[in-house]
Amino acid sequence: MNELLFVNASQVVTCAGPGAARRGAAMADAAVRDGWAVAVRDDTIAAVGPEEELRRAHPGFAEVDCDRGVLTPGFVDSHTHAVFGRARAAEHEMRAAGLDYMEIARRGGGIHASVRDVRAHTEAQLVALAGERLRALARSGVTTVEVKSGYGLTLDDELKMLRAIRRLAAELPLRIVPTFLGAHEIPLEYRDTPGRRRAYIDLLVHEMIPRVAAERLARFADVFCETHVYTAAESREILLAARAAGLDLKLHADELTSSGGAELAAELDAASADHLAAISDGGIAALARGRTVATLLPATMVFLGRPGQAPARRLIEAGVPVALATDFNPGTSPTLHFPTVLTLAVSQLRLSAAEALVAATVNGAAALGLAGRVGQLAPGFSADLALFRATDYREVPYWFGAALCRRAWVRGKPCDW
Amino acid sequence: MNELLFVNASQVVTCAGPGAARRGAAMADAAVRDGWAVAVRDDTIAAVGPEEELRRAHPGFAEVDCDRGVLTPGFVDSHTHAVFGRARAAEHEMRAAGLDYMEIARRGGGIHASVRDVRAHTEAQLVALAGERLRALARSGVTTVEVKSGYGLTLDDELKMLRAIRRLAAELPLRIVPTFLGAHEIPLEYRDTPGRRRAYIDLLVHEMIPRVAAERLARFADVFCETHVYTAAESREILLAARAAGLDLKLHADELTSSGGAELAAELDAASADHLAAISDGGIAALARGRTVATLLPATMVFLGRPGQAPARRLIEAGVPVALATDFNPGTSPTLHFPTVLTLAVSQLRLSAAEALVAATVNGAAALGLAGRVGQLAPGFSADLALFRATDYREVPYWFGAALCRRAWVRGKPCDW
Repeated sequence: MNELLFVNASQVVTCAGPGAARRGAAMADAAVRDGWAVAVRDDTIAAVGPEEELRRAHPGFAEVDCDRGVLTPGFVDSHTHAVFGRARAAEHEMRAAGLDYMEIARRGGGIHASVRDVRAHTEAQLVALAGERLRALARSGVTTVEVKSGYGLTLDDELKMLRAIRRLAAELPLRIVPTFLGAHEIPLEYRDTPGRRRAYIDLLVHEMIPRVAAERLARFADVFCETHVYTAAESREILLAARAAGLDLKLHADELTSSGGAELAAELDAASADHLAAISDGGIAALARGRTVATLLPATMVFLGRPGQAPARRLIEAGVPVALATDFNPGTSPTLHFPTVLTLAVSQLRLSAAEALVAATVNGAAALGLAGRVGQLAPGFSADLALFRATDYREVPYWFGAALCRRAWVRGKPCDW
Repeated sequence: MNELLFVNASQVVTCAGPGAARRGAAMADAAVRDGWAVAVRDDTIAAVGPEEELRRAHPGFAEVDCDRGVLTPGFVDSHTHAVFGRARAAEHEMRAAGLDYMEIARRGGGIHASVRDVRAHTEAQLVALAGERLRALARSGVTTVEVKSGYGLTLDDELKMLRAIRRLAAELPLRIVPTFLGAHEIPLEYRDTPGRRRAYIDLLVHEMIPRVAAERLARFADVFCETHVYTAAESREILLAARAAGLDLKLHADELTSSGGAELAAELDAASADHLAAISDGGIAALARGRTVATLLPATMVFLGRPGQAPARRLIEAGVPVALATDFNPGTSPTLHFPTVLTLAVSQLRLSAAEALVAATVNGAAALGLAGRVGQLAPGFSADLALFRATDYREVPYWFGAALCRRAWVRGKPCDW
């Protein structure tokens, strides 16, 4: 039996609260406790409270010395495209030189570069490449990560990506949530005539989604709803087919232009609407009326060198639960360090440190349909913890770029990174 | 005798070129070589060239397997305030909440918070705190770091800081360059009357600078030239006194407002003018006519959440050598990861990856008066190297936040971090 007592923490950031009962939490209280401890039995948190009390109540539990560090729920990175082939480092400086997305695509870059590349890799190769990257992300304190398909864009290549994600889930010391993103782009081979575009949507709706659902390869379906990619009407059709097949919904919404993405996510009661740098007032109001989590990805805008960031404060003030994620992907956010996202959340999105930590845990879990099981240090939750070299929780976002995570545990087991 | 042959690198980024002969290099060629090796004898680079050639020419040298990684000159972080007491994490979220600098100062924050704090610490305490932080910076690939005083602002406390820096230089596996920044602010106790302000400048000029120079505690003197801090005229007076005492010059210039800082740095032939987010056209022209290095600190603007970045492309196009640094300090850039600065240099300053690497090595060395000895993999240079987990040099800025540095060597010795 696995019986652990986490003691001698400088602070325990429980992130526990009413967020547990709701889909997400719109709030600011990370419930930071001095002098507390955490008891774990098997894969679950048994108790959280004052250290001496827990010591008395759990004799015989093996003590884990937190060495005056800060103990938090492990981070939930609820939006990544972590399965891909090669790095696209050349595009980084092409963009710096002023080339726009169309010109980068003309020179062989963009999403289609990763599509060609993933199609040329075997499942085993993808597992090896993504495994190394996900371990790096885990070393920064992530214990749950969502991973999307979307660089295959054929039935076989999308299945290959999702099977790679399934193998990663079995092999890595992380909880992995798979998302089908066959609607990441219109494949180049379906762009020659308008009818061909329709044919790809038919392929998504009538072949890919049923197959993915039948093989239980994904928990969520996602669509890139954006000008020049999928319209709101197309996104609705694809997501409704996914829901009918038993998948829960996510949406890439209003990243670059206001195209009704947030409104659609709210209409469909999606688990999350992601990006939102260009969300409209109507989109904020729609999210505020519903339960959909707003997942913000500040590293992407900084990496792209774009001035806009999502209106995080307005979302929070409207009562929308905000989550934070890396958007880890080879084109627009090769971000392998979760705390950098927390730094940017405070510096660029103007969240408090507590809001950022809640967004990275409770609300990230809600964005993955895991509220009530993951993202809080509270009895009955999965024993997913991260320990940081810091004495105050506000230092976790503060030390920009620093490798503060000393260790993490998933389902009560120490991560072997 | 220390005889090493660095082999099996995917790429060797020499950064070697005409920059060696000049104070800095205004250019873009990082001289990236495939299939090359580096030979080190004692503390110096003996040869750089094709691997088989170097193997023949250096029989008996101990081989260091670079495991297909990218080998570069160690980074030169030419602007830090690494000696301080406690973190100022609370200010991070105060700023996010919209409080301005004056209000943060009223609540006990800002530079004066670190001044109070440093005055309350012993030299040994400061060494212990800064040592841990500088080791973290070193683990990210930094082999030379400049460290400023400037949180003491009394003769004894400034000397204490500089002695702490001297001890750190002796104890850490890093080359440390000390800078006297007694003119970081006007101390609070000198602000009650206009005459008191003058008295502090007299103290700097007639007591602190001569004493620092006599004890050889600093290589450079620096002044924070900014509206509400030191005027250009005051900065000139202080820097001329420092030069007369044998110190070389640096200047915090045009960070928040155009206050003639770049022009003054050029006039005084300072080694560097630092920050420059608000540099004027006249300032760019002045730097272009001289030899002063423009040291840019992009992490600071991102951390502060300010929209402006220094006009790096205009500086480069004007022929000004550009260096990059962390500005590591507890208030505006708690940045402990040098590659994050490279990422931001490409993403936010629009440098190419090669320009960023040259800025972080050759030009950083020039900003510290070390051009010709540090910052290049070329015969006769100090054997300061960093090895990265990457196959292409462009991945070093690309993988945002990733811990890519596997190992570093200073003066031919592996760093014990």
